[in-house]
Amino acid sequence: MTPTITAFEASPDRGKGQARDMRVRWALEEVGQPYDVRLLSFRQMKEPAHRALHPFGQIPTYEEKGGLALFESGAIVLHIAQQHAGLLPRDAHARARAVNWIFAALSTVEPPIVERETAWFVERDKPWYAEHAPMLDERVRKRLGELSARLAGHEWLDGAFSAGDLMMVMVLRRLSSSGLLQEYPNLHAYVARGEDRPAFQRAFAAQLAVFTAAAAKG
Amino acid sequence: MTPTITAFEASPDRGKGQARDMRVRWALEEVGQPYDVRLLSFRQMKEPAHRALHPFGQIPTYEEKGGLALFESGAIVLHIAQQHAGLLPRDAHARARAVNWIFAALSTVEPPIVERETAWFVERDKPWYAEHAPMLDERVRKRLGELSARLAGHEWLDGAFSAGDLMMVMVLRRLSSSGLLQEYPNLHAYVARGEDRPAFQRAFAAQLAVFTAAAAKG
Repeated sequence: MTPTITAFEASPDRGKGQARDMRVRWALEEVGQPYDVRLLSFRQMKEPAHRALHPFGQIPTYEEKGGLALFESGAIVLHIAQQHAGLLPRDAHARARAVNWIFAALSTVEPPIVERETAWFVERDKPWYAEHAPMLDERVRKRLGELSARLAGHEWLDGAFSAGDLMMVMVLRRLSSSGLLQEYPNLHAYVARGEDRPAFQRAFAAQLAVFTAAAAKG
Repeated sequence: MTPTITAFEASPDRGKGQARDMRVRWALEEVGQPYDVRLLSFRQMKEPAHRALHPFGQIPTYEEKGGLALFESGAIVLHIAQQHAGLLPRDAHARARAVNWIFAALSTVEPPIVERETAWFVERDKPWYAEHAPMLDERVRKRLGELSARLAGHEWLDGAFSAGDLMMVMVLRRLSSSGLLQEYPNLHAYVARGEDRPAFQRAFAAQLAVFTAAAAKG
């Protein structure tokens, strides 16, 4: 049963692994599950055929032959982690806490990071951006400081590496080019530890290959 | 085994049920699980004792005697739904899709709504707010339009009422005083259907009673 995921035909991040299919690729690599990829143009993502699969017209989606279709990266990673060994602890309490960290990454840490990114895209030519941008940086720093304090002295968020760490590392990686992560050395090292995992490396190479091929085609 | 949740001693929304403990109260009421509430002042939420439970210094938290402690409303609602019948379908695929909607509510629909709220709190006295606010409204409308199209003709998001609907209704309710929800009559009716459920009513009354008691005490 090889699942099919969707990804950008030409990722806007130029192969830096910031698109959300990277989260799903990494999870699939961690559990050793091969997968197929269907590439979509920006136009195709907004067409009814894809909207039927993803109501918000984005990537990734996840389809199992003959049945299940999902469209939120958090739900897809959780589903993969529940179906295979390797991404969630066996102990029921530890398992629930790992799932808690998936939600913390997506619901508490990621929103101010996306807000900061979005402002750069849509407000950077506005006269107010110089005053607004530092406010958005502070909002990100607040969460990073709290997360850094919790992680202090630990390799991963709660015992062994889990789907919660996978999602948190992916969310924090969005700050790679911002300089903000470096202000919290233990978070910076945490992200590097995630990126060093062989499964991350394989997933990263796979998404980069898509971008490189698209760039070569012009 | 009665779990304990935390909530605001005096909710900043003055009992309108917008604080995130309402999500957990509603889930517990849907499955018929009694619960205890520990009330916290704003000062207590930021103290080390609470930070040990919730690294980001917020409410709600969820504790089972002798063990499990969680702090993200999404993870808590999912945990309750997995432990009890009533909030997730039995069929494995339908169950995964319901969980997908919890993530969609928290990760795709809620962030632009919170961003719009936050701007009102921190930017409304800034000279740029008059130009920025409509941009934030549009970001919310984009998601509402897509969600409205998906819901078209259906009572709930995917078959029977689930934890996915519970979370989506709670997220959309944040727009109650904005007028934006009324632009999408089927979403407005969807939220009203959620609010009409007896379990919602009981949860709402419980959180309102906390606020009323706090206000009477002065």
